Amino acid sequence: MTYDYNSYKELAQTAADLQYAAAVLEWDQEVYMPSKGATFRGRQLATLAKQAHEMLTSEKYEQVLKALIDDKSLDEIQQNNVRLAFEDFEKNKKLPSAFVEELSKQTSLSFNAWIKARQENDYHIYEPELKKMIALKRKQAELYTYEKHPYDALLDEYEKGATVAMLDPVFKMVREELTPFLKKIAGAKQVNDDFFHRNFPRQEQWDFSMDVLKKMGYDLDAGRQDISEHPFTTSFSAEDVRITTRVDENNFASLLWSSIHEGGHALYEQGLPASEYGLPLGSAASLSIHESQSRLWENCVGRSQGFWKYFYPKLQAYFPQSLKDVSLNDFYKGMNQVKPSLVRTEADEVTYHFHVMIRYEIEKGLIDGSLRPEDVAAKWNDMYEAYLDIRPGDDKTGVLQDVHWSHGSFGYFPTYSLGSFYAAQFFEQAQKDISGLAGQIEQAEFGNLLQWLRQHIHQYGRRYRSDELCRNITGRSLDFSSFMHYIQEKYSGVYDLK
Amino acid sequence: MTYDYNSYKELAQTAADLQYAAAVLEWDQEVYMPSKGATFRGRQLATLAKQAHEMLTSEKYEQVLKALIDDKSLDEIQQNNVRLAFEDFEKNKKLPSAFVEELSKQTSLSFNAWIKARQENDYHIYEPELKKMIALKRKQAELYTYEKHPYDALLDEYEKGATVAMLDPVFKMVREELTPFLKKIAGAKQVNDDFFHRNFPRQEQWDFSMDVLKKMGYDLDAGRQDISEHPFTTSFSAEDVRITTRVDENNFASLLWSSIHEGGHALYEQGLPASEYGLPLGSAASLSIHESQSRLWENCVGRSQGFWKYFYPKLQAYFPQSLKDVSLNDFYKGMNQVKPSLVRTEADEVTYHFHVMIRYEIEKGLIDGSLRPEDVAAKWNDMYEAYLDIRPGDDKTGVLQDVHWSHGSFGYFPTYSLGSFYAAQFFEQAQKDISGLAGQIEQAEFGNLLQWLRQHIHQYGRRYRSDELCRNITGRSLDFSSFMHYIQEKYSGVYDLK
Repeated sequence: MTYDYNSYKELAQTAADLQYAAAVLEWDQEVYMPSKGATFRGRQLATLAKQAHEMLTSEKYEQVLKALIDDKSLDEIQQNNVRLAFEDFEKNKKLPSAFVEELSKQTSLSFNAWIKARQENDYHIYEPELKKMIALKRKQAELYTYEKHPYDALLDEYEKGATVAMLDPVFKMVREELTPFLKKIAGAKQVNDDFFHRNFPRQEQWDFSMDVLKKMGYDLDAGRQDISEHPFTTSFSAEDVRITTRVDENNFASLLWSSIHEGGHALYEQGLPASEYGLPLGSAASLSIHESQSRLWENCVGRSQGFWKYFYPKLQAYFPQSLKDVSLNDFYKGMNQVKPSLVRTEADEVTYHFHVMIRYEIEKGLIDGSLRPEDVAAKWNDMYEAYLDIRPGDDKTGVLQDVHWSHGSFGYFPTYSLGSFYAAQFFEQAQKDISGLAGQIEQAEFGNLLQWLRQHIHQYGRRYRSDELCRNITGRSLDFSSFMHYIQEKYSGVYDLK
Repeated sequence: MTYDYNSYKELAQTAADLQYAAAVLEWDQEVYMPSKGATFRGRQLATLAKQAHEMLTSEKYEQVLKALIDDKSLDEIQQNNVRLAFEDFEKNKKLPSAFVEELSKQTSLSFNAWIKARQENDYHIYEPELKKMIALKRKQAELYTYEKHPYDALLDEYEKGATVAMLDPVFKMVREELTPFLKKIAGAKQVNDDFFHRNFPRQEQWDFSMDVLKKMGYDLDAGRQDISEHPFTTSFSAEDVRITTRVDENNFASLLWSSIHEGGHALYEQGLPASEYGLPLGSAASLSIHESQSRLWENCVGRSQGFWKYFYPKLQAYFPQSLKDVSLNDFYKGMNQVKPSLVRTEADEVTYHFHVMIRYEIEKGLIDGSLRPEDVAAKWNDMYEAYLDIRPGDDKTGVLQDVHWSHGSFGYFPTYSLGSFYAAQFFEQAQKDISGLAGQIEQAEFGNLLQWLRQHIHQYGRRYRSDELCRNITGRSLDFSSFMHYIQEKYSGVYDLK
């Protein structure tokens, strides 16, 4: 039996069909599914995961990949697809199908327990299902194997090559460089953001978010926005990329930053080459690079003065009552208020990384066994007190706030901080490369910026690893100083620091 | 290798997972999918169909079924599942996987062409994709094989045992018995339904439909209603059964009858035993029995005077402006207006069967080759003129009105008429069996009726064929005279006939 590139493509894309189908079912589960649908949805997702996994770990797939891995007649794109697919194959085949199915079933159970626990504001409802999930993730780390720390095996799923040895110093930097900067801000004249909590009618919030998304360049013929408990982006091809947001009539910030953030993710997915559907070069480079896109739009663009020069008058027209006495400058300062708070997704850009650091430390402990699931809620609260000097009053604003663990996503959170740091470094470069970018942002003309992102990042899919991509674009590896520079410059303005 | 009942259940339910996953993707396609998502959605659906089909026609599945087909140690439910599964297997294996995949791909193409043709109001946009679909269906009939008429092979997919030889006389009866009755009505004093076309705000229409659905007993923790181009019911298990409707601010009837009709379908699906998920006894008996449930709720219940004794005051409260000068009696008569019209889904209960008969005759011709696809629009219009004395002025209200052919559903329409006839016969029996049913309906207490349907029909799934079920319940085979009796009695009242 001889195999050619089409044999590979056929198998890989068929498995992708099943995985994208699962993504539709998951999207539905979080957006529209009636509650009783959960049980059978769980088994449907488990079956799809199992079938795809069997295909991607089959002997035939192995034979096809081995026949192509050194085939120099393939073009560069094909060679890269085969190389990365083989890398994935070697990782995937470490997990038996039965394990993959079990993990998928547990994901549905944990997710539903998480939903219920949030409704009842009680971690104990979630704990038994989370505990089973953690046991599975520890088993998964053993199956993957690792050199130094079991958590390394899980990190690698989201961020190829990331390890505890690499991340410990990064979060040490977060603690050591951001803590004194936070103190400096705490000592300055505080800014006010109370107006975000005035009344903002749902429909107008929604409409404004759609206006912003369209201006950003989000193609709504190839995407849509819906409401879910926890905002997310999902993709069923580069031509169907969806985001969700949430609306709180008394907290406009909740929707605003979710929509722009997920919009940034969506622009990345829509920019991946549709011709490489279901193949590595049609997929995002890594989670940190994904997050760099959402953070760049949310923070570097969406929380800038220039952005709101254009949008603030539009926003005031939507909410004349609630914003008539708020100047553009007050609005800008308010949205950039730095203040320790309990909920990660609503945190400012400075304290945000303490939220991530806390999750990183807890995950490390859960996976290496030094922290027991039953102690997580207390540990969580203690760390918030130690680093941010605030203590969650309940589980909903504490340990229950994130969906990730219910999905089995351990090792995912660190990519959020990496993404922010990449975002600052990329945006710094974009400002150098695109002449007149500041002026374009002031007119909500994002075409050149999007083009720059498509050209330097989106078009390549997984061709380059995060660090390689970063060096290609900026000439340097990830450098925390770009982020610190961005933060210092911006917040010196917001807080009139010396 | 020895196989037990669990081997069968595992295989059948895994295939069902894939089929239900496809149903979620189809639901999404018609309800929420952005337009550009169509291409890759098409291949995702094709893959799911192919995988499920391969599983259900595999050698292993055959071996499992053959090992169990004469196993007397199985309980009655198990024996019935195996018997029906084997019947399906023998039919399914007649279709090669490549054919199933091609059919699924063509379905997406035809569906999208139909959507576009409707938007542009131009049959010619649809024709090339419909033509390919018809060619595939003719091929499918040959693959299935048949005794007398190729259309028989397709009818059998929707209604086991139905044939042209059986249906020709039924539709002859429609022509011969309903035509003089229609004339009688045409000669009587006409009733007015203009008020349906006053202004009925969307949200209030929606809210009223939800009130009715809840009263009917539709479990909204195991279902939901959405908006689509063409109303339909779909099911992803007995615990996730969804309906769609459409809203026209200037035609309240459009939403009202769709919601009640689909609600009737949904009650059936929710009443199937969840323990038999994905197995024959967890599936509906046939399409005609399915339709009997929707028609019973829509017509026998929803268009009765008693039903509106309860609901009409509620409806007037929703639309005080538009209904203040319409009495209950005028409303009742208006909703039962009999008048030849162009759109099947909005037709009255008498002329409805001419719509079906026309489609039946056209399908027969398309499948046996006596009618060419390019002549369908003209044939359609000619038949409407011949039988209902009206001629469609455009394609949208003519040949483009139904989604079915784009889905490859040839042989489906006749089950609509059969369903109406079963509905009349079942309802006649329910009135005998349930004491005080008329009074219960007047108070919107549908519990006993639903219980009766669950007990006599829903709980059995596919255990009995349509005719067997009908005999079990009413002591007779399908009998057109029950329907004629129902029609004559009701419309003699509405039209003051002698």
